[in-house]
Amino acid sequence: MYRKEIKVMDCTVRDGGLINDHYFTDDFVRAVYLALSKSGIDYMEMGYRSSKELSPPENFGPWKYCDDDKIREVIDGIESDIKISVMVDSYRVKEQQFLPADESPVDMFRAATYVKYIDSAIELINKCHDLGYETTCNIMAVSTEIEPDIIEALDQLAKSKVDIVYVVDSFGAMYSEQIQYLVKLYTEHLPGKTIGIHCHNQQQLAFGNTIEAIIHNANFVDGSLYGIGRGPGNCCLELLVGFLKNPKFDLSPILKILQDHMIPMREELEWGYLIPYMLTGIMNEHPRSAIALRKTDQKDKYDEFYRNMRASLD
Amino acid sequence: MYRKEIKVMDCTVRDGGLINDHYFTDDFVRAVYLALSKSGIDYMEMGYRSSKELSPPENFGPWKYCDDDKIREVIDGIESDIKISVMVDSYRVKEQQFLPADESPVDMFRAATYVKYIDSAIELINKCHDLGYETTCNIMAVSTEIEPDIIEALDQLAKSKVDIVYVVDSFGAMYSEQIQYLVKLYTEHLPGKTIGIHCHNQQQLAFGNTIEAIIHNANFVDGSLYGIGRGPGNCCLELLVGFLKNPKFDLSPILKILQDHMIPMREELEWGYLIPYMLTGIMNEHPRSAIALRKTDQKDKYDEFYRNMRASLD
Repeated sequence: MYRKEIKVMDCTVRDGGLINDHYFTDDFVRAVYLALSKSGIDYMEMGYRSSKELSPPENFGPWKYCDDDKIREVIDGIESDIKISVMVDSYRVKEQQFLPADESPVDMFRAATYVKYIDSAIELINKCHDLGYETTCNIMAVSTEIEPDIIEALDQLAKSKVDIVYVVDSFGAMYSEQIQYLVKLYTEHLPGKTIGIHCHNQQQLAFGNTIEAIIHNANFVDGSLYGIGRGPGNCCLELLVGFLKNPKFDLSPILKILQDHMIPMREELEWGYLIPYMLTGIMNEHPRSAIALRKTDQKDKYDEFYRNMRASLD
Repeated sequence: MYRKEIKVMDCTVRDGGLINDHYFTDDFVRAVYLALSKSGIDYMEMGYRSSKELSPPENFGPWKYCDDDKIREVIDGIESDIKISVMVDSYRVKEQQFLPADESPVDMFRAATYVKYIDSAIELINKCHDLGYETTCNIMAVSTEIEPDIIEALDQLAKSKVDIVYVVDSFGAMYSEQIQYLVKLYTEHLPGKTIGIHCHNQQQLAFGNTIEAIIHNANFVDGSLYGIGRGPGNCCLELLVGFLKNPKFDLSPILKILQDHMIPMREELEWGYLIPYMLTGIMNEHPRSAIALRKTDQKDKYDEFYRNMRASLD
């Protein structure tokens, strides 16, 4: 038996873009769009709508900006019911354009924020809502925030126009008990809003914790193909589709894109369960130190890395 | 805060032996024994006590048999509080020797069984118990058994001399709800016995489901280094140690053996999250078809493999 309210969001191109500076080819993005559409996935996140002043285009591929015209070009001619989402770092909003929704291929904007930037996020969300977009707020790094600050942010969001608020385990540090606690806390403080879940896979818990959130009535769930994403990556979309019983989902197009694109891509780009990420996860830290380590010839010197992390607690 | 009743069992050499016909070198087994001892792990499973008549020694390495003398040789000179466990397939007992426990380096025998062989398992368990060993019963493949049969087996075990009964997710097919249900069912039918949990990682749920079992009072938990084991492997021991808060555990010796032995070994032997295993997991099937596929040049033809699996439902 399935819960028809559950919507699945694929973050392959958006979160995966963090490990290749958003330089996915048009062919790849088009293949993902086609496969997700055939599989019955509800939303595809194409990338970020970043400021070109703050992040100059000579340094990044097109999916850092997700210009409306670029999106149109890549989906041209494909029949699809999938909705398109774009993420915005709400603390890096400058000159970016947001056309009225009916003039754009984008259906949803997701505001990524830290608790301290919640006011900027709400400003962006309300603006996008008034332009006709669906909106979410993804509050990052809540595993490092104290509860009164989280609650204040949630109470502000409750009064905003946001549709969906995500529990985000940015550092892959949470166990099922923390996920359960936060999903209940968000639900309590956000009457009438939908709760989403976005997990990272530092400790191989992204899928298990997503299930935990679903059990406690989170209805927006994020995944990516083969878990692609920064560091250890995300919940695997293929696992989610295997778990959800809604007969509208078809695993076959996903299996095909895994074999044709993701397995070869994994030879070029590194993501997934690796011990340095596991260690930043259990220490509830940003993965940046592990990402840096993996670029050196010390990449498998786990014990020294762990000793250095603990030494930095002094 | 930790629960002192929780005991951790490492299955690296036993379950890992299933992918190299139990041919681990003495140096490797000794290194594992040393690392686990230093890390404060409670039990190390060395392998199987198999019948040499049924499984001739020309086909397998020494950890298929775990002769007492072989175990003594490999642990000689290492000071350690770790207990040694050996597994026995209770439906393949023939001429194997079981000396009295005080004449053996082995502390625990674990009887692996299917529901239909529960009587053989109980016979073996009672015999080992009377010889002075700790005993467990690991009932495999319960995700394919109907409940009255499971309950009958549990009720028989309740009257046996077994110390610990494991919930085993042989096919990596279970989600947290099934784990929770079975741990409660086993607890209810096995008054006074300890409940164990052994999970496989087809769907990246081995660790998450182990946590779920711990929450519901399972106190014997299995893991292996870097998750080594047949097919997708097991719950990663390093994740368990990161999760459990008992200060007696030290992650450093585990990190060292990961970098020195497990990462190079993973280059030679294949285990872990791979799509064919994921598919047998979601289909609640034995991984043998996926193991066979991975040995062919079709190993990454996921969609065809999945179509064949579904066709076999006809």
